[in-house]
Amino acid sequence: MGKAKLPQTTIARLPIYLRSLVMLASRGERIVSSDGLAQIAGTNAAQLRKDLSYLGEFGIRGVGYEIDQLINEVSKWLGLLKNRKVVIVGLGRLGGALAGYQGFSEKGFKIVGAFDRDPALVGIEVGGLTIQHIDELDDFVKSVSGGIDIGIIATQAPSAQGVADRMVNAGIKAIINFAPITIDIPNGVVLRQVDLSVELQILSYYLQKV
Amino acid sequence: MGKAKLPQTTIARLPIYLRSLVMLASRGERIVSSDGLAQIAGTNAAQLRKDLSYLGEFGIRGVGYEIDQLINEVSKWLGLLKNRKVVIVGLGRLGGALAGYQGFSEKGFKIVGAFDRDPALVGIEVGGLTIQHIDELDDFVKSVSGGIDIGIIATQAPSAQGVADRMVNAGIKAIINFAPITIDIPNGVVLRQVDLSVELQILSYYLQKV
Repeated sequence: MGKAKLPQTTIARLPIYLRSLVMLASRGERIVSSDGLAQIAGTNAAQLRKDLSYLGEFGIRGVGYEIDQLINEVSKWLGLLKNRKVVIVGLGRLGGALAGYQGFSEKGFKIVGAFDRDPALVGIEVGGLTIQHIDELDDFVKSVSGGIDIGIIATQAPSAQGVADRMVNAGIKAIINFAPITIDIPNGVVLRQVDLSVELQILSYYLQKV
Repeated sequence: MGKAKLPQTTIARLPIYLRSLVMLASRGERIVSSDGLAQIAGTNAAQLRKDLSYLGEFGIRGVGYEIDQLINEVSKWLGLLKNRKVVIVGLGRLGGALAGYQGFSEKGFKIVGAFDRDPALVGIEVGGLTIQHIDELDDFVKSVSGGIDIGIIATQAPSAQGVADRMVNAGIKAIINFAPITIDIPNGVVLRQVDLSVELQILSYYLQKV
């Protein structure tokens, strides 16, 4: 790609900056200061300037960032200018909610396959997709032109590792795990572990002050 | 509380350290090096040592951290040693999934009330709770001894601000918003905005490399 490697913590903040910028643009703003953007994004201006400095030279000293330009640059760095194909495994309550989550498709993440091992769920429609049996995953992934970019695991904890193994074997290179258990993946595959209780724990800290 | 104020970014990492420590403890480990813990938590050792230095003096140079002690300290700092009472508003697919999310109760966050404005949902049971009409929220919050600690918003985007206002008026001091829209809250109330597509965007970055 010819791009520098970004620090992991910077990568994790880029989507937050992007969301903040899109929000400002939707309000009709065209320029934002690093202080202003940092505040919306929940960080400080020094951190923001350092993060954005990895992406190149934007920002006009004493003026700020041009919002449209920065949206475009951050999107480019995050690889968001192309659509991503996503499959989801586990169509219980959480999986069903994720399959219908509007925020995914709006941001270019298109769920193209839904899989479960429960025969009672196979054949049911969710979010415009017909649930397939998990045994079909491998054939399905291989049948999709260009392959599947991301696999979402939304099973119960005991099933998560087995599903991850199936995804890896099918050639999926990026996995998000919503099951409340740590899973192992081989080198060359990237994994994000989502724990919805992290946000509650962060609030718990602040509750001690209010 | 007599505690120093932690940087916002440190606070956000503490739950990740905690989860990593609990995972190590469940494997029977008793000591972990800062390198080892940092790797599991997805950060670097210098950052980890800096974060933990705010909490006090643990860690034995050249040896590492005692896992049980550190779990206890991090939990204490996050205010996790007391149970938290939580209400959830919006019992569509995502709200229903959150109401039944096992990870919350395991970590001391007890969902004690569920509310929706849809008459078709009121009276239905979800996660062991009977859904109440949103108009009952204020009375309910005031009737709970010690009050409600945290309000979860899981409505559609257009309803989120109105629900936040109701929560604030009822005296709730901490809000998590899962609706894909930015909401405003007054000073003295803490807010966490959850966007499930952030994790997909982070993976998207790494997909450019694999």
